Amino acid sequence: MTAAPAPEPGAPAIPWEDRPAGGSVLWRSGRNPIIARDHLPRSNSIFNSAVVPFGHGYAGVFRVDDTARVMNIHAGLSADGVAWEIDPEPIAFTPADDRVGEIQERFLHAYDPRVTWLEDRYYVTWCNGYHGPTIGVGYTHDFETFHQLDNAFLPFNRNGVLFPRRIGGRYAMLSRPSDNGHTPFGDIFYSESPDLVHWGRHRHVMAPEPWTWQSTKLGAGPTPIETDDGWLLIYHGVLTSCNGFVYSMGAALLDLEQPWRVIARGRDYLLSPQAPYEQVGDVPNVVFPCAALVDRAADRLTIYYGGADTVVCLAHGYLSEVLSSLKP
Amino acid sequence: MTAAPAPEPGAPAIPWEDRPAGGSVLWRSGRNPIIARDHLPRSNSIFNSAVVPFGHGYAGVFRVDDTARVMNIHAGLSADGVAWEIDPEPIAFTPADDRVGEIQERFLHAYDPRVTWLEDRYYVTWCNGYHGPTIGVGYTHDFETFHQLDNAFLPFNRNGVLFPRRIGGRYAMLSRPSDNGHTPFGDIFYSESPDLVHWGRHRHVMAPEPWTWQSTKLGAGPTPIETDDGWLLIYHGVLTSCNGFVYSMGAALLDLEQPWRVIARGRDYLLSPQAPYEQVGDVPNVVFPCAALVDRAADRLTIYYGGADTVVCLAHGYLSEVLSSLKP
Amino acid sequence: MTAAPAPEPGAPAIPWEDRPAGGSVLWRSGRNPIIARDHLPRSNSIFNSAVVPFGHGYAGVFRVDDTARVMNIHAGLSADGVAWEIDPEPIAFTPADDRVGEIQERFLHAYDPRVTWLEDRYYVTWCNGYHGPTIGVGYTHDFETFHQLDNAFLPFNRNGVLFPRRIGGRYAMLSRPSDNGHTPFGDIFYSESPDLVHWGRHRHVMAPEPWTWQSTKLGAGPTPIETDDGWLLIYHGVLTSCNGFVYSMGAALLDLEQPWRVIARGRDYLLSPQAPYEQVGDVPNVVFPCAALVDRAADRLTIYYGGADTVVCLAHGYLSEVLSSLKP
Amino acid sequence: MTAAPAPEPGAPAIPWEDRPAGGSVLWRSGRNPIIARDHLPRSNSIFNSAVVPFGHGYAGVFRVDDTARVMNIHAGLSADGVAWEIDPEPIAFTPADDRVGEIQERFLHAYDPRVTWLEDRYYVTWCNGYHGPTIGVGYTHDFETFHQLDNAFLPFNRNGVLFPRRIGGRYAMLSRPSDNGHTPFGDIFYSESPDLVHWGRHRHVMAPEPWTWQSTKLGAGPTPIETDDGWLLIYHGVLTSCNGFVYSMGAALLDLEQPWRVIARGRDYLLSPQAPYEQVGDVPNVVFPCAALVDRAADRLTIYYGGADTVVCLAHGYLSEVLSSLKP
Amino acid sequence: MTAAPAPEPGAPAIPWEDRPAGGSVLWRSGRNPIIARDHLPRSNSIFNSAVVPFGHGYAGVFRVDDTARVMNIHAGLSADGVAWEIDPEPIAFTPADDRVGEIQERFLHAYDPRVTWLEDRYYVTWCNGYHGPTIGVGYTHDFETFHQLDNAFLPFNRNGVLFPRRIGGRYAMLSRPSDNGHTPFGDIFYSESPDLVHWGRHRHVMAPEPWTWQSTKLGAGPTPIETDDGWLLIYHGVLTSCNGFVYSMGAALLDLEQPWRVIARGRDYLLSPQAPYEQVGDVPNVVFPCAALVDRAADRLTIYYGGADTVVCLAHGYLSEVLSSLKP
Amino acid sequence: MTAAPAPEPGAPAIPWEDRPAGGSVLWRSGRNPIIARDHLPRSNSIFNSAVVPFGHGYAGVFRVDDTARVMNIHAGLSADGVAWEIDPEPIAFTPADDRVGEIQERFLHAYDPRVTWLEDRYYVTWCNGYHGPTIGVGYTHDFETFHQLDNAFLPFNRNGVLFPRRIGGRYAMLSRPSDNGHTPFGDIFYSESPDLVHWGRHRHVMAPEPWTWQSTKLGAGPTPIETDDGWLLIYHGVLTSCNGFVYSMGAALLDLEQPWRVIARGRDYLLSPQAPYEQVGDVPNVVFPCAALVDRAADRLTIYYGGADTVVCLAHGYLSEVLSSLKP
Repeated sequence: MTAAPAPEPGAPAIPWEDRPAGGSVLWRSGRNPIIARDHLPRSNSIFNSAVVPFGHGYAGVFRVDDTARVMNIHAGLSADGVAWEIDPEPIAFTPADDRVGEIQERFLHAYDPRVTWLEDRYYVTWCNGYHGPTIGVGYTHDFETFHQLDNAFLPFNRNGVLFPRRIGGRYAMLSRPSDNGHTPFGDIFYSESPDLVHWGRHRHVMAPEPWTWQSTKLGAGPTPIETDDGWLLIYHGVLTSCNGFVYSMGAALLDLEQPWRVIARGRDYLLSPQAPYEQVGDVPNVVFPCAALVDRAADRLTIYYGGADTVVCLAHGYLSEVLSSLKP
Repeated sequence: MTAAPAPEPGAPAIPWEDRPAGGSVLWRSGRNPIIARDHLPRSNSIFNSAVVPFGHGYAGVFRVDDTARVMNIHAGLSADGVAWEIDPEPIAFTPADDRVGEIQERFLHAYDPRVTWLEDRYYVTWCNGYHGPTIGVGYTHDFETFHQLDNAFLPFNRNGVLFPRRIGGRYAMLSRPSDNGHTPFGDIFYSESPDLVHWGRHRHVMAPEPWTWQSTKLGAGPTPIETDDGWLLIYHGVLTSCNGFVYSMGAALLDLEQPWRVIARGRDYLLSPQAPYEQVGDVPNVVFPCAALVDRAADRLTIYYGGADTVVCLAHGYLSEVLSSLKP
Repeated sequence: MTAAPAPEPGAPAIPWEDRPAGGSVLWRSGRNPIIARDHLPRSNSIFNSAVVPFGHGYAGVFRVDDTARVMNIHAGLSADGVAWEIDPEPIAFTPADDRVGEIQERFLHAYDPRVTWLEDRYYVTWCNGYHGPTIGVGYTHDFETFHQLDNAFLPFNRNGVLFPRRIGGRYAMLSRPSDNGHTPFGDIFYSESPDLVHWGRHRHVMAPEPWTWQSTKLGAGPTPIETDDGWLLIYHGVLTSCNGFVYSMGAALLDLEQPWRVIARGRDYLLSPQAPYEQVGDVPNVVFPCAALVDRAADRLTIYYGGADTVVCLAHGYLSEVLSSLKP
Repeated sequence: MTAAPAPEPGAPAIPWEDRPAGGSVLWRSGRNPIIARDHLPRSNSIFNSAVVPFGHGYAGVFRVDDTARVMNIHAGLSADGVAWEIDPEPIAFTPADDRVGEIQERFLHAYDPRVTWLEDRYYVTWCNGYHGPTIGVGYTHDFETFHQLDNAFLPFNRNGVLFPRRIGGRYAMLSRPSDNGHTPFGDIFYSESPDLVHWGRHRHVMAPEPWTWQSTKLGAGPTPIETDDGWLLIYHGVLTSCNGFVYSMGAALLDLEQPWRVIARGRDYLLSPQAPYEQVGDVPNVVFPCAALVDRAADRLTIYYGGADTVVCLAHGYLSEVLSSLKP
Repeated sequence: MTAAPAPEPGAPAIPWEDRPAGGSVLWRSGRNPIIARDHLPRSNSIFNSAVVPFGHGYAGVFRVDDTARVMNIHAGLSADGVAWEIDPEPIAFTPADDRVGEIQERFLHAYDPRVTWLEDRYYVTWCNGYHGPTIGVGYTHDFETFHQLDNAFLPFNRNGVLFPRRIGGRYAMLSRPSDNGHTPFGDIFYSESPDLVHWGRHRHVMAPEPWTWQSTKLGAGPTPIETDDGWLLIYHGVLTSCNGFVYSMGAALLDLEQPWRVIARGRDYLLSPQAPYEQVGDVPNVVFPCAALVDRAADRLTIYYGGADTVVCLAHGYLSEVLSSLKP
Repeated sequence: MTAAPAPEPGAPAIPWEDRPAGGSVLWRSGRNPIIARDHLPRSNSIFNSAVVPFGHGYAGVFRVDDTARVMNIHAGLSADGVAWEIDPEPIAFTPADDRVGEIQERFLHAYDPRVTWLEDRYYVTWCNGYHGPTIGVGYTHDFETFHQLDNAFLPFNRNGVLFPRRIGGRYAMLSRPSDNGHTPFGDIFYSESPDLVHWGRHRHVMAPEPWTWQSTKLGAGPTPIETDDGWLLIYHGVLTSCNGFVYSMGAALLDLEQPWRVIARGRDYLLSPQAPYEQVGDVPNVVFPCAALVDRAADRLTIYYGGADTVVCLAHGYLSEVLSSLKP
């Protein structure tokens, strides 16, 4: 199982709906939300989740807040990427080496997962509570057994996203250093590792832009998508209104070999909270992307995002148009 | 009129709707909200209100914010507990003794009432503005004439709830010490009194639990319900999301004779803001219980709660199931 | 074109709908919102906008936040005051004198416009970003070419509203000194000018009133309306709930010759956020009036206000009733 | 031992130094600080302490922060009120009744004691950590054995000071409701008790005065001194400078029978932090009075106060002059 | 009396002490503080004060906080600029016109005065409490009778400093827009007036510089000094340490005809709080310049500044060296 | 030059003064401060600095804030460890590899250095401003030429301290994750690296202890000292008084092979700000240790610490006594 994570022959096409009249670069699925908050017996909400092609269908890691409002991540499978079987039990990671048990002594919570096919397996990164939020790292071959590596960074960090291949011979990750609360700031940084355990060469990538939809903080979303123009980064940006944070989704292009160099950055958001399931819920006014499926042949891009920290939604667009939107 | 507050013969059954398919321990009334925000000519909102059996029907004390957004409490009557006649004028308390006039010199506001049948009359407690929020105490025999006692405590305090009988020979009250704003903390305490005027023997009962639906603060809701297992306490717990407080409802069991000892405490909330009238309103995402009716013969429990600090709602459940939900 | 801004013969009546059953002093248009958030191709939201009679119809200056969430003001025309043609490009002000270019060196943003017919032209005031928010001043004769004067005040200021005639021989403006964020305080002040460039004689007009709908801050809305009883001021007042600001609309009467003297002030709000398009949007729970049309013959008052910082709405009332509501 | 706490025959005069040239109403002792921060082997600081006549000399209860910065209170004895023997071990209270043990289960800290001779014994009140700061109450006959009553109030409270006799047949206490941090607000309240365990009849006494030395908060200091004019209350008032709190000392007169009625209140502070030992220390700029000795025959008043939360100091004045200073 | 405010013949030289060994560009007077905090019978502190040549000596306006900590300004006279007679009563301004009485209805406080000889009289500007801090303006011919003009600006503003001549035919003032507390931000702006009553043409002059002694806020100090190179502006800059604000003194050069253009700005502070009377007092770590005397013939510059918001101090330097220090 | 950093033959003894009468476990040098704030021509302050044995004397890296209040680090040499020659120019690091230049593009500031002899050279760690504070790493052989490695961690981090040998085959560092301001929290963590560039295996070491001298945050001080009992860690702990942070010094023992396991931790501080040069200065009430010299034969320990963020000071003690003080 060393091949790329491309859909196997016979695998279903990625979820798709054509653009409605008057649609913009991205448009919402008419089936939104595709996963309801009470999809599981004890789920308070399911959102901010990651999906990848897997076998003859799709697999995912889902953020599930239970009815005690404890945050955890669960595995799931789907034939079509829209209808999901999610494990009612959270993922139980086994230590990937004999040191990992030391950080498992005290489990606090896990949330906002991403999944990346890298070399020969699916890596999962998530926000892992260890004396503050930091980036948990694990992997699976089959979405049944999951192995945990050491945390990538010191607290306080969130939104750790792996690149899908080595860059300059090193593993590479984006992340957003934070504080220990509802952080009112946050830039995206790039870090490298020879072994996915020790990380260094930290480089600043992007800061908020004053007086825009991304003026408070921002964080990487799906696994960056390699294109001829550079890495396409879908990310969330946050504006602080007088009644709280507003999370929108936008895009940027990063240099293929020096991804901390920003080649282009979209002026406009691609999607902001305007649908009821994005405006009303446990956290009003949130659009939070965590995964993307690409059908390069069809020029199709489908993004999984959380709505209002409550439900899972889909947005669609043409890859070429998203790239074009970044050019001045 | 020294008998218990049990419904008189011929009194109507408590409001009730059977559990819908897929319902959980508590379920919402299909008639919610049972009292609209503009139920009175000058009401901005009616919510966080208390109801008790009274005569051949029900009586209540209602939080009414008027269209100046001044907060006050009003009396009301109902034949069935669902359709209410609420007095458009606030309750005008007469001093219960010759000292009470001293604290009535400057009326600021009154809100979040509870009503408890205790010995021979209905006691009302509420959040009373006297150089800061504190616990007002009064009583009525007929829901027409109301008498005011001295405030129970120094400011700053909210959510004062009387027990329905003396404990160890003393009157007993739960309350939540606060600060003078939108308090971001708060534990439940227990206090005793020989005369409902002087209070002491303050004991800590429950603190918030980190990383759960009740991680910021909590406060007692309806009058505690005596059961063989202990006092059933329905209470609100608050979580702080990145866009504000989320108020949910849960339950605990307190020791019958030492009610500051917690016997059991539910891990999950019983109801959290998921209906539109709880998610949208003057304060989004609020479920706030203030009263409960019990039909022990039918094992029925009906809870009155405020939705979004805007309307009055009902939830139903089986008393035995609520108690079972607290057991590990 | 020196005559008053009264509608020309043949001009349409102001937008109007009769009072629905059970309506209060002001009532909402059944056509709300009259301008959708995506009315322009690149508009994120259109709200807090000003309308005046113009020629055979109406003209307006609109706050448009674009899909980068950059705030700007745009001109628009309408035959009936309800259906609008809005210029997709922001207003480009030309300097009204040779000094104005100095403050145009660095444009940050423009928002919350008001428009006032004064002597011989339409003046526009708005919140102008110049090293902090302050009051921009400009004018137009035709809503095609706009001329910019110097800013009226030092930062930090918002909600600058001109009176429609000189008072005591001086131009007069209301404004609300602020800070550089989402200001949690704010009183209305009055200032005078001989030339609309230099301002002085600053007088305090109104402060918030504790424990009411206007307890946090307040700011002038439409151009004051001259009546025999005084200047009718429609204004917004803000209450801070535990989940953020709530913006409502109320009224006061100011002395005709010493407008900093308050003759009467309404106890109740006239409109508070209770419709979905006021409760849900980019900033939940906002009703923000910026303009009013008066048909004195018909005793009609129509108010343009922003809903939830997202859409433009209309409210109607009888001028005489609004005035009556201010009397004790 | 039921007699009053007047010095026994042969007892030394109260500590005293004559007024220096140019002195104001109160003047500092030339021996200040009379107790050094390292007076005890493990003391980090000794300050905010209470002294009373006792037998042939004086006794006191001292706030001692140890070198772990744990706050506790210690007993001490002195022949002259200036040179002190302080017990290196904190006071170990025995429960005064069979319920007090319930609040002793978890000791957090004790600080800022006051001592009052009341009826037949010396009562000690202090800030007692019990799920937040509140008012601890105890007593002693001999400053060797100390008995603890229940806490007077719910948290959060500080600066509880008993009156030296019953008023209207009730025990009476001043206190200052607070929050759980370095409270930026605080008024003085009055409460009554039939038994020193249950407290009620809470009355507001004094609020801060804007733009003065007492504009942030204030709290009672020594036991009120009964005079023909009323209760003389020495208290601390706090101003918030741009670099922190400044604690000064002032005085007021309270009605003898309704002490919540303020008869007179000094415009000026009596002492503010101007000596090095008040300006520099663990908390710069603090003068904090906790006790007073009165020699009525000699018209002498000697005040014990803490300097910079680090040391114990003395100030002197003539009782008649302090009273005169309160008259307009 | 139209001549310039140059010292009259026979007037004493400005206060001066030669540079001590090892001194830097500015050095402290060995007589510091030249005015003690208790210089007046009821003064808590005297600081942040302004001095000008007057007749055969010097006159000044002094900030005096009294022992109630009420802030006010007092006139004073001196033969040598070092030994001062200060009026124990605050300045009582008479209205300069029939409108000024309107703003005198409610006096709150006055502080931080500056004095400028302009055309034919001495103008005084100060921070004037009128529903928030703003810039008071008055004048005197003789330092006995003072006349008050209208406030220059709306609140919130501090540190208003007049230029000593018209610029471009207009009066000119520097100021620092603020908020209503201990403002943690603040830039210097420039404004113009035809009549000292109405102000406009507001221009931004200087912002804080991150990571330096002037990283939080800054404000103009003495009246700008006209030199061939431009206006020499001595100003205060503030850094926020983890224990509060640190106020230092620096200098900049402004364009003679467009003073909002900064020609040069010193990298280093000229004086920061390092003497005990600057480090310890009512506000630790404050050096706050308000006035300067220049002896151009002798190349001497003497600056009056407040120390620790408690005392008045002097610093000396050579004008030419200060100018040189601004050049890169 | 691969030998250990032990003083060479003929090198001077470490700075030392015998314990004064009444001294505690640590005592201050009578020569404090040993380096004045204006030791360099353009130094505002010199403090929080690191010293090691070097050749026939001592070398150091010093935090120097210049008179613009820009923070930088400078090299220095001394024959006796007390009298220092400090380079007036900051250290100019040369990149240690071809990637380091990327992080040198934008230099913000450098402060709070530590120096550790490790294997064959002196490593320097410091707080390095790179889009927020993080841990800079460099080395020198001769204190003339300094080489910079990549930053160890992502922002926000401070107080990075290397262990003086590999542990488990890995380089090891303590650090304190922070936020981007005057962080009001902070625990000590442990991290490992194979190459001093990539870091992982992050482990929590110590958290603040409520209600003590170390209740707000803490950070490692000198290079840990290897003893038979474990690593002796001297560290700073911070308490938040109502007037700001108080920094004291204490000690703990860490496991030799698993240094994130705390063997013992002192209850009391070893030194808190009680000397004038610790209580008064740019940041009042700071004692901040950064280096230690050990003479094991003489059982002597000498600690270099910063006083009031202004000067460099020395404290002495017996190593054995410090270790004993940690045992319960």
